[in-house]
Amino acid sequence: MKRSEFLKRFGIKLDMAVEAHDLIRGETGREIPGVKMDKQTFSQGEITVINIMEPLGAQIMGKPIGTYITIDAPVIRENNKLAHKEVTAKLAEQLGSILNLKPEDSALLVGLGNWNATPDALGPRVIHYSLATRHLRKYGPQEIFGVLRPVSALAPGVLGITGIETAEIIKGVVDRVQPNLVIAIDALAAQSVERIGTSIQIANTGINPGSGVGNIRAGITQEFLGVPVIAIGVPTVVNAATIAQSVLDQFMQQINQNPVLAKTVANLNPISVDQAIKNVLQPYQENLMVTPKEIDDLINNIGKIIAAGIGQALHPSVAPEDLEMLVH
Amino acid sequence: MKRSEFLKRFGIKLDMAVEAHDLIRGETGREIPGVKMDKQTFSQGEITVINIMEPLGAQIMGKPIGTYITIDAPVIRENNKLAHKEVTAKLAEQLGSILNLKPEDSALLVGLGNWNATPDALGPRVIHYSLATRHLRKYGPQEIFGVLRPVSALAPGVLGITGIETAEIIKGVVDRVQPNLVIAIDALAAQSVERIGTSIQIANTGINPGSGVGNIRAGITQEFLGVPVIAIGVPTVVNAATIAQSVLDQFMQQINQNPVLAKTVANLNPISVDQAIKNVLQPYQENLMVTPKEIDDLINNIGKIIAAGIGQALHPSVAPEDLEMLVH
Amino acid sequence: MKRSEFLKRFGIKLDMAVEAHDLIRGETGREIPGVKMDKQTFSQGEITVINIMEPLGAQIMGKPIGTYITIDAPVIRENNKLAHKEVTAKLAEQLGSILNLKPEDSALLVGLGNWNATPDALGPRVIHYSLATRHLRKYGPQEIFGVLRPVSALAPGVLGITGIETAEIIKGVVDRVQPNLVIAIDALAAQSVERIGTSIQIANTGINPGSGVGNIRAGITQEFLGVPVIAIGVPTVVNAATIAQSVLDQFMQQINQNPVLAKTVANLNPISVDQAIKNVLQPYQENLMVTPKEIDDLINNIGKIIAAGIGQALHPSVAPEDLEMLVH
Amino acid sequence: MKRSEFLKRFGIKLDMAVEAHDLIRGETGREIPGVKMDKQTFSQGEITVINIMEPLGAQIMGKPIGTYITIDAPVIRENNKLAHKEVTAKLAEQLGSILNLKPEDSALLVGLGNWNATPDALGPRVIHYSLATRHLRKYGPQEIFGVLRPVSALAPGVLGITGIETAEIIKGVVDRVQPNLVIAIDALAAQSVERIGTSIQIANTGINPGSGVGNIRAGITQEFLGVPVIAIGVPTVVNAATIAQSVLDQFMQQINQNPVLAKTVANLNPISVDQAIKNVLQPYQENLMVTPKEIDDLINNIGKIIAAGIGQALHPSVAPEDLEMLVH
Repeated sequence: MKRSEFLKRFGIKLDMAVEAHDLIRGETGREIPGVKMDKQTFSQGEITVINIMEPLGAQIMGKPIGTYITIDAPVIRENNKLAHKEVTAKLAEQLGSILNLKPEDSALLVGLGNWNATPDALGPRVIHYSLATRHLRKYGPQEIFGVLRPVSALAPGVLGITGIETAEIIKGVVDRVQPNLVIAIDALAAQSVERIGTSIQIANTGINPGSGVGNIRAGITQEFLGVPVIAIGVPTVVNAATIAQSVLDQFMQQINQNPVLAKTVANLNPISVDQAIKNVLQPYQENLMVTPKEIDDLINNIGKIIAAGIGQALHPSVAPEDLEMLVH
Repeated sequence: MKRSEFLKRFGIKLDMAVEAHDLIRGETGREIPGVKMDKQTFSQGEITVINIMEPLGAQIMGKPIGTYITIDAPVIRENNKLAHKEVTAKLAEQLGSILNLKPEDSALLVGLGNWNATPDALGPRVIHYSLATRHLRKYGPQEIFGVLRPVSALAPGVLGITGIETAEIIKGVVDRVQPNLVIAIDALAAQSVERIGTSIQIANTGINPGSGVGNIRAGITQEFLGVPVIAIGVPTVVNAATIAQSVLDQFMQQINQNPVLAKTVANLNPISVDQAIKNVLQPYQENLMVTPKEIDDLINNIGKIIAAGIGQALHPSVAPEDLEMLVH
Repeated sequence: MKRSEFLKRFGIKLDMAVEAHDLIRGETGREIPGVKMDKQTFSQGEITVINIMEPLGAQIMGKPIGTYITIDAPVIRENNKLAHKEVTAKLAEQLGSILNLKPEDSALLVGLGNWNATPDALGPRVIHYSLATRHLRKYGPQEIFGVLRPVSALAPGVLGITGIETAEIIKGVVDRVQPNLVIAIDALAAQSVERIGTSIQIANTGINPGSGVGNIRAGITQEFLGVPVIAIGVPTVVNAATIAQSVLDQFMQQINQNPVLAKTVANLNPISVDQAIKNVLQPYQENLMVTPKEIDDLINNIGKIIAAGIGQALHPSVAPEDLEMLVH
Repeated sequence: MKRSEFLKRFGIKLDMAVEAHDLIRGETGREIPGVKMDKQTFSQGEITVINIMEPLGAQIMGKPIGTYITIDAPVIRENNKLAHKEVTAKLAEQLGSILNLKPEDSALLVGLGNWNATPDALGPRVIHYSLATRHLRKYGPQEIFGVLRPVSALAPGVLGITGIETAEIIKGVVDRVQPNLVIAIDALAAQSVERIGTSIQIANTGINPGSGVGNIRAGITQEFLGVPVIAIGVPTVVNAATIAQSVLDQFMQQINQNPVLAKTVANLNPISVDQAIKNVLQPYQENLMVTPKEIDDLINNIGKIIAAGIGQALHPSVAPEDLEMLVH
């Protein structure tokens, strides 16, 4: 009952590179060729940088070539604003390290997801807490807004609301506004409950179809948009099927400590195991999400952290306190 | 690995009488003494009436003596407003059957739960869609509002917001307003995913501590308030631990078809099975809920149905269309 | 103290053609060349159709050549859902009369305005209550969605949130989606309090800079977008300066009945009259709006009416009740 | 055309003592017997303390005997969080000066007003940003919550939603919870536009019928509740009739500079002046409010300031930064 096969059978994609890496390394027991991983710690947690450098690594990981930075900071779950500031600063630093922008370059923030579905509303919430400056440079006083990079911000909605592929809306706006960079923010699904609301993934690969809580269908990528795309994602849910499989897995580990049991159980039909999960989750199936009760507060807190981190990374010459005074 | 023992170990209460009944009947294989169950169908689903008539039945069921009506209508999940009207009418009829009010008697609606946590927001949403008439009889035109029963409505908030036991707030208001009946609306946790957003439980026993998504700590009962209390509850979540246990259970049923396996597995330590579940669900544990993605829409639709059903039951002489014109 | 001069001095544009027409006709005392006006009544109010047919008329009216239909229905202010249905049907009929679409033509709905500012939130609210069908034709079952016209829907936000001229966002999306028609919905400012929440203007001229509560700066017009644009607007505020001027005007009419007074008052410096208004309205000045207390409910009710009216006009072969079942 | 007579004719009450004082002093040209006024300035504005000491003063002022502190800080309108902190500290200081509580005394915060009507939603918003501690002392860890005063918090809703006089709900809760003090927060109507969102009134007299944007009908006072009541109010609107009268007044001042005009105009019938205002404001009349466009943001900012100021005043031994970490 391998996790990777279960995911394939249930059509669940791994949104987080760090989870894909851990899963494959764990199942294969060896390094993934063409993939490098580094870990470092900071005051409030851990940072993992995964570099997928070659096509083979990309194929095994099921993710495009690129850099995937994950900040794990359990303190985000707590209401500790001082600690949140440290996480924000770390996010700004890490984001800054892959921004690759000239001082006068412009950026377009895109908050993906559905504002009417709390766990999917992270993107729009980040837009709510972000500072658009593109028009201020044009219409506002020069002494204040001259130092700010031109930033625009969009919450395009989801296919079910707009009837338009989200990537198409963004492509249309990019063609008009011509930013030098797109930063797309999205809610993710994790494999592990403890990542909910505490892991931030930054990837310079954009967002590929089928990712995220809301499941976009066309890529929000440099290939499609014509400008580099940085994706920022935070897990807000775990798929209920994943939870079910995790528990079965833990259970099997106990059984496997008994050699007799292990042998017989090995013959169990995986399809009928899947059926057990499906029976429990119907009629909602893949639309069933596991979230903490306090998800509304969580989305709000992370939204503020992400928005502030992006702001600090985009306007490095402005003091964080001054930036804070300009937003909601 | 009996479900009833699992629930006890995890401190999970069964909010729905119909689920408690099914569980106990299933595990014991015989009728519960002092408890009667009747089923009937209607155009959009099924109605189950459970009467707990004697102390022994109450003890076995873990619920007070009283009547528990459950309307199961999967169509609530769909956006079919015509079918919703049928469910509303059925709710009004069933509620009417246990209201036990004289025409001039007054009622106080209480919407329990936290408006800041979507799955727990059903109660406040029902209050939003309800019509308070108590003041209209005093201040409004007599020809319109003279025929309406005096109804007041309150969304008291939750302990974490108010710092006050919800039952205390209600008791204070009941002492001032002196209604002849309290109708308390709350979000429930179910055992089965398919009940989410589709089952409505009406009970003439009030609400007891530890029930509901938000887990009140003091009883909202006739004993405490001094007036009869009807509780209306709809499951909006399944506890994630319950999902996990259900999947393990389904899995065990397969194992148990193999007599050799069945024998050996029977020796597995239930505590370590629990640990498997706890490992997967930490660090959120009992605060981890399983909800469908579309929970926001679901809460809104059920909120309208419950509010309209209560309205029709309380004002039987007013046509449903006329009532609808008076509310949001 | 002519109203037209006051408006010019205060930089207030007349959003409603019917008010521009009444003002000019009143001040000049004669028909406006190249402009035709027709009135008719219906069960719930009055419909005024103004046709600006020639450049001279357009210049005098300060509005482009085109057709401006105004539905005045005071009943919208009341919570009478039956009467709202009649207004909805009339809106669908009038809108249908200028849609000029082939059965398979597609439409893009654009909800202008700021969802964070209640009186300006009408556009986004209409999008909330509207049905996007464009993707359903592609992904949904053919028997249901084959008969629906492809409709997409967008709430682009406002310049202060996005940093992008709203017209630019729409242009970008139009270029990708290539609809045959854009329908743009916006909150308007009226001259008269009694129009708040009760007048619906439909114009086949699009929306021109400086109109609406949120004051767009670039045209949402066929000229800019390349496809026809129908604008639907409802007044949700009256500028506070306009209220002030209206009261002064009414006061002057009384003074003018006294010939001696009239003569002397005529010498009053209009600039100092303006100063009186400015003194009272500072420091908010032009950002000061007059709205009824119940504006939140009003926006919600009108949002539903407009969304349903557009839906019925775009999908004439589907029964209104069936359409209603598909939306929020 | 005296303002005081206009207000009486239009049934408009002066919510702010400082405005009542200025009006009466201005019209009478002399000190008000039994009333004392002191002014002082601070970094961000001005503080006015009005003491009504005798029944005669109370009668002239139309307000009960007591202390009315007004903090005027135009900076609240700006998004300057640093300056907001100074206003918060000043509010905490002034509030602290009249709290009159022993360290272990408890307080109940009551957020008056309608959460569905933006300008009236200040009270509920303050509750949203406030920290209830009463239950934490009982259920939370002693080392953290032992130093906090027991505070409970309630947003009771308005008569139109609940059907119950707000004072009755509060009385019921006070009887159960038995706090040593009630602090009631409400949105006010001002006479002058520049007070909107920038003046904070603190009064130790409670709230009397007919005050506030939502117009309560029974007193929230020590007399009714049995415990002292401090009222905190912030103007969020100006009555549209007041604006109209102010403009007419300014206009008359100009006329009065011309002695001939002044004499004749003095004969104008005040009733017909009122009619001018009523004509302009119908059909909404007294429900027509003047608010700035950005009222939603304003309510949010003031809500945070008031909540933080109350928190600091109630828990003087906890550092403001630590308090901030405990709330939303």
